[in-house]
Amino acid sequence: MAYTLYYWPLPFRGIFIELLLAEAGQPFEKKSPSSIYPDHRFDRPLPGMAPPYLVEKGGLQIAQMPAIATHLAERHGLMPSGAEARAAATKAILDANDVLEEISQNGGVQMWEEESWGEFRAERLATWMRIFEETYQHHGGPFMLGEEITLADIAALGLWAPMIHALPPLEEDLKRHAPQVSALLGRLAQRPGLEAFLTAQRARDGQGYCGGEIEASLREVLGLKAEG
Amino acid sequence: MAYTLYYWPLPFRGIFIELLLAEAGQPFEKKSPSSIYPDHRFDRPLPGMAPPYLVEKGGLQIAQMPAIATHLAERHGLMPSGAEARAAATKAILDANDVLEEISQNGGVQMWEEESWGEFRAERLATWMRIFEETYQHHGGPFMLGEEITLADIAALGLWAPMIHALPPLEEDLKRHAPQVSALLGRLAQRPGLEAFLTAQRARDGQGYCGGEIEASLREVLGLKAEG
Repeated sequence: MAYTLYYWPLPFRGIFIELLLAEAGQPFEKKSPSSIYPDHRFDRPLPGMAPPYLVEKGGLQIAQMPAIATHLAERHGLMPSGAEARAAATKAILDANDVLEEISQNGGVQMWEEESWGEFRAERLATWMRIFEETYQHHGGPFMLGEEITLADIAALGLWAPMIHALPPLEEDLKRHAPQVSALLGRLAQRPGLEAFLTAQRARDGQGYCGGEIEASLREVLGLKAEG
Repeated sequence: MAYTLYYWPLPFRGIFIELLLAEAGQPFEKKSPSSIYPDHRFDRPLPGMAPPYLVEKGGLQIAQMPAIATHLAERHGLMPSGAEARAAATKAILDANDVLEEISQNGGVQMWEEESWGEFRAERLATWMRIFEETYQHHGGPFMLGEEITLADIAALGLWAPMIHALPPLEEDLKRHAPQVSALLGRLAQRPGLEAFLTAQRARDGQGYCGGEIEASLREVLGLKAEG
């Protein structure tokens, strides 16, 4: 295997790297991050605060999801050409990372309650969906940034598809605030590499999302039963 | 002016863009973000959730600090060559962004109290300092990633120098956990473009840091008087 990804058996931040490698046709293995975090982070070059961590056989070893993603996109033909499109693709993966930070309340610093969730869902989550929709509207069709699949598509798919799979009521929110992105997700999920990966990932992780008490709190405010 | 940066009159996330343009010798103007956020974000291409927002005259208009920083670094010769060094430089600016998120408690979701601050300072903040130090140790000298100044140096300077200027007791922490990075900051701050910028920025912003109640809470746990 050329690549080893250290991440928990959950989609959340790791799935962007997995989707990128799946689309690029690059085999990879996934290992528990417990051999690195929290006790052995400084045994590694370019150490990080938290997973994911990527090891390239004989090459780069690095933390930070968006740094891993832009690096792999560059290497495997998923970074667009042109300074503006490159910045837009980088922005998309950063935006995705920020949404995960917000929906998990920064790793579970607080739990969702009905009021705080209702406000977040109606305001910030809707705004994030519109941010992706506006990017598609101005740059996209049939992909996020135009005629070719790029890191921006991996960002959109990796952000919204696992969220909707784990928390199905949010599909209606995406259809309302980002209808073109919602349709794009369907098209992306039919690409052979991505379809095969998502099928295997869902068989592996079920409806697990970010894990922990914060995932339980998300299920509760959405009226879903606990993931078994 | 080729560049307009929309950000508050504070260093925090905006200063990375300012330092980068100062080092590159690019004139820029800074404007209040209130003409964009929160009511007019969707009037702009590549909209964001929060400042900074960059407008290039006749060119890119984009949100997301690390996307702006990597784009400008690429354009102005501050992105290293080689895939590994590029990934390391990108990681440095992402790490810096994450530290700001943590020290401001995600934009002031909670306030610092003696116990939570003590734990953060001894554990996560010290770990972040060591992460920068390890990067310098493995890749650096005289700059973060080797013989030339890059985005990674702007990340280190933009993260730690304003923090120490606003919250002086933290200088000892950096000297203890990241002595080589601490020395690097001194060398960077003597480069003509950076020195002129930092002098003007400190005259403009005083010891202001992230603003708001969260800045007051930081000053309180550090036993500093309120910024007048």
